[in-house]
Amino acid sequence: MDMPRSSQLWPDVQPKAARRLMLAGVEAFALRGYHATTTRDIASAAGMSPAALYVHFPAKSALLFAISQSGHQQTLDLVQSRAAGAGSPADRMRDLVEQFVIWHARRHTVAKVVQYELNALSSREYEIIAQLRRRIERLVRDLVTEGVQTGEFTVDQPRMATRAVLSLGVDVARWYDESTRHSPVALGEAYAQLVLRMLGNVPG
Amino acid sequence: MDMPRSSQLWPDVQPKAARRLMLAGVEAFALRGYHATTTRDIASAAGMSPAALYVHFPAKSALLFAISQSGHQQTLDLVQSRAAGAGSPADRMRDLVEQFVIWHARRHTVAKVVQYELNALSSREYEIIAQLRRRIERLVRDLVTEGVQTGEFTVDQPRMATRAVLSLGVDVARWYDESTRHSPVALGEAYAQLVLRMLGNVPG
Repeated sequence: MDMPRSSQLWPDVQPKAARRLMLAGVEAFALRGYHATTTRDIASAAGMSPAALYVHFPAKSALLFAISQSGHQQTLDLVQSRAAGAGSPADRMRDLVEQFVIWHARRHTVAKVVQYELNALSSREYEIIAQLRRRIERLVRDLVTEGVQTGEFTVDQPRMATRAVLSLGVDVARWYDESTRHSPVALGEAYAQLVLRMLGNVPG
Repeated sequence: MDMPRSSQLWPDVQPKAARRLMLAGVEAFALRGYHATTTRDIASAAGMSPAALYVHFPAKSALLFAISQSGHQQTLDLVQSRAAGAGSPADRMRDLVEQFVIWHARRHTVAKVVQYELNALSSREYEIIAQLRRRIERLVRDLVTEGVQTGEFTVDQPRMATRAVLSLGVDVARWYDESTRHSPVALGEAYAQLVLRMLGNVPG
């Protein structure tokens, strides 16, 4: 698996040992699924003892939650900064989709865990993640609505269109791998173009 | 989990006991992942002994393969019949996307297993599934190309656009559930409209 370094994946997480465990967790969860992975598997992949793992994460579920929360927070930050950027709604949507797609392509292994292991979270943890997801969806929907108001977008059902925009980006994590002929950047640009069309933005 | 009956999911599979095992397998794999599920779990969920399971499926992997192959074959049949239907490329694409989305929404639990447990297959089994996937992708790409030739579609990169069309449909299996406010049919119609726009089909 060709993964970015843990310092690139989680620049905000300290110390390095915690990041190393998160990376080992992502690789194991992506390979065998959350439930079939033991804390021992993760600790030994990170070159640590199970006891050393518990110093950073009190349980396997805490590790999954940390991975999920960090991934959702990163995409929320990305979406937030792009939605609030300069330019018209169409300009901002193009930029937002590009970056959202690039994030999911570059970190496809992390994104798989973030997107597909949600039902392994406890209901309290899930609710925290669901709030981040609702904020992401809300920001995109507001941008769609803004574009409809300026006349740049023509959308009958903003909620459905928003779902489709995010869905296209998220699904990149499922199928993208290092053998894909398009780079994350090329994919991001092409998908941004497709999304603008989907929203009825026809460049004059 | 609100699932269609096994006779609706696998009308082509006989006897009923095999379908009952496939249904129990789908539910267990969707809940805990393939690797964390034992044949004993599946057999007892189907009200059978592990020995009775082995009469129909020689191993847990054979059950996953049967579920995956049947799901891919059904979507291939659906895509094939719609791509070869009557009407213009845009008409056929609308119909194809509608049915593809409806399939993934109605059978979202089966589709999750079909789409997200591929890496648990052996390489020989995976190759059989990959062939079905390539045929699906090829049919959609040919339809995109046909629409470009008739002038109904405007697409710079047919391969990328094809990926996006299928991706939108497949990802429905990830997020759709019984609490979704749109019915599978309403979703299919809306998504077909979004896809036609994405392909540059602007109704005059």
